[in-house]
Amino acid sequence: MKAAFYEGKKSFRIGACHPQSPGRGEVRIHVSYCGICGTDLHIFNGAMDQRIKFPQVIGHEMSGFIAEIGEGVEDFAVGDAVVVRPLDACGQCPACQAGHNHICQNLNFMGIDSPGAFQSYWTVPAHTLHRLPKDFDMKIGAMIEPLAVACHDVRLGEIKSGETAVVLGGGPIGMLVGLVAQSRGAKVILSEPQDFRVKLSKELGFDSISPEEQDLVAYVEGKTKGAGADAVFEVSGSKTAAEVMTNLVRTRGRIILVAIHPKPTPVDLFRFFWRELRLFGVRVYEGQDYEDAISLAASGKLPLDRLITAVEPIDRLPEVFQSFETNPKAMKVLIQCSESST
Amino acid sequence: MKAAFYEGKKSFRIGACHPQSPGRGEVRIHVSYCGICGTDLHIFNGAMDQRIKFPQVIGHEMSGFIAEIGEGVEDFAVGDAVVVRPLDACGQCPACQAGHNHICQNLNFMGIDSPGAFQSYWTVPAHTLHRLPKDFDMKIGAMIEPLAVACHDVRLGEIKSGETAVVLGGGPIGMLVGLVAQSRGAKVILSEPQDFRVKLSKELGFDSISPEEQDLVAYVEGKTKGAGADAVFEVSGSKTAAEVMTNLVRTRGRIILVAIHPKPTPVDLFRFFWRELRLFGVRVYEGQDYEDAISLAASGKLPLDRLITAVEPIDRLPEVFQSFETNPKAMKVLIQCSESST
Repeated sequence: MKAAFYEGKKSFRIGACHPQSPGRGEVRIHVSYCGICGTDLHIFNGAMDQRIKFPQVIGHEMSGFIAEIGEGVEDFAVGDAVVVRPLDACGQCPACQAGHNHICQNLNFMGIDSPGAFQSYWTVPAHTLHRLPKDFDMKIGAMIEPLAVACHDVRLGEIKSGETAVVLGGGPIGMLVGLVAQSRGAKVILSEPQDFRVKLSKELGFDSISPEEQDLVAYVEGKTKGAGADAVFEVSGSKTAAEVMTNLVRTRGRIILVAIHPKPTPVDLFRFFWRELRLFGVRVYEGQDYEDAISLAASGKLPLDRLITAVEPIDRLPEVFQSFETNPKAMKVLIQCSESST
Repeated sequence: MKAAFYEGKKSFRIGACHPQSPGRGEVRIHVSYCGICGTDLHIFNGAMDQRIKFPQVIGHEMSGFIAEIGEGVEDFAVGDAVVVRPLDACGQCPACQAGHNHICQNLNFMGIDSPGAFQSYWTVPAHTLHRLPKDFDMKIGAMIEPLAVACHDVRLGEIKSGETAVVLGGGPIGMLVGLVAQSRGAKVILSEPQDFRVKLSKELGFDSISPEEQDLVAYVEGKTKGAGADAVFEVSGSKTAAEVMTNLVRTRGRIILVAIHPKPTPVDLFRFFWRELRLFGVRVYEGQDYEDAISLAASGKLPLDRLITAVEPIDRLPEVFQSFETNPKAMKVLIQCSESST
């Protein structure tokens, strides 16, 4: 029973996990695996120190089995395989009142604003749970959260069969967005400068190019008879991508903004006017996206295992975080949070 | 029978109009009135010299009566009161093929790329015509084109009854967008720094403020119980507006980009992500918008006459253009293009 405590200044301490009894409406989960998210890396690098109260157990891309049920929880039982949708909304703010509680204006993002899943036992509200099918691979279970992000992005991006979608950025979320768009019938062009990722992206069935080696705009125009792509997913967060995205889209096409651009960045608003382009900001997921992600993963049609580049025991979590940025081949790394994780 | 020829370098020459016989599928119109558009002022100021082949008759916000019918025109007759939707699309480009011929990639914008309506007779393709109702005021007829812009913007902005819409910029298009949004049941907050326009905007029934005198973001939050507006129309083209627009909108709210921002400008993309905001670029109009504009104008519910601040004979056109920028009270100025205009 272990837990990884983020203590600030690029440092984690591995200590004992103290299981919390579930209160009314809560469950205690025996955590199987928890993936390392880009947000966890931001936290590790100190970018979110103002938001995090450390020492804090972080982590939110998890799978596990219910170990204990609190009072009033009726829909789940001990032993159920589950994933957590780590959003605890206030229910009161204008966003919640308008039905957008996934982007609640006072959101408690579990694993950032409150304790997370890099520990053997995690106690959470039952309303955050989604059940996994029988005999589901719990490593793939830890991929449901990022896959739900991709399902949300593709759903809000209104991708239709036969469309051409460009994905800018070939990290785990870019790859998942490409896979989900492809599963909806889109032709995917993925743009990514890093060799390893271009290669992997080709293996996943995408039309992949490095924008450092080829003119991306000309490439997309060539592939779309001069029309431009139906949709562009900006998943890179780079200034260059924000500059080029408007030149990749057809008239009335959609740009889906997945990435975080921390500072205001120059955007070609003229092109939005000229081609009647549309920009959709998208963030996290809603319940439907979790269900879609679970169905897609259960179908076995997506090569999700190809994105898992390592599985490490929780004892190694501090070194894994340390080495992440110097490892160009790291895609999704899972932390095994319990000794029995199946 | 006169015509105003733009000759470059802030200069117009008034000369004889040489009526053109209508070819197959064309009609010749006896032009009643033609309004001065912001685009005409851009042309006058030399901003579009690369696009204009001068000497050129410009002007496109017009009304008139059919004077002659070319071969093969069956739906119109001599004497019909009409307005022209001045878009002549190629029909072949990807935008046209996708059904967006109003933003054709090879668009001939009549009055810019080919001769326009600041003349007594204008010969145009019959497919650009919309019929005005019997006994329609031809001065109001010259307001149909800018009103159709506003109808397009409000339609694509998906404005619903009861919503709060902020309009940034109180020129003619900003005022018309406000009026159309109001006619669809929206509460309109108009932000405009110029005193005369703020006053006129209040008289039109808008909640109007000067962003130089009050904190616009706080004002909109106060009016929406902290939620933000459902929609923001950016009609000003100012850098400040592009900076502030993202702070005025509720979660999943819409920003409708009407104005031209000639250069890339800093935009808060983080806010798009954080609140799942949407940006819709909008340009000109489609046939439906012209029909909507004619119906709205014919209903008599919009005080369109309040936006017409002067009607001048075509002989005075050069002085009117010269004096436009130094007249803070000029909204829509109409040029009477024929001696009999009723």
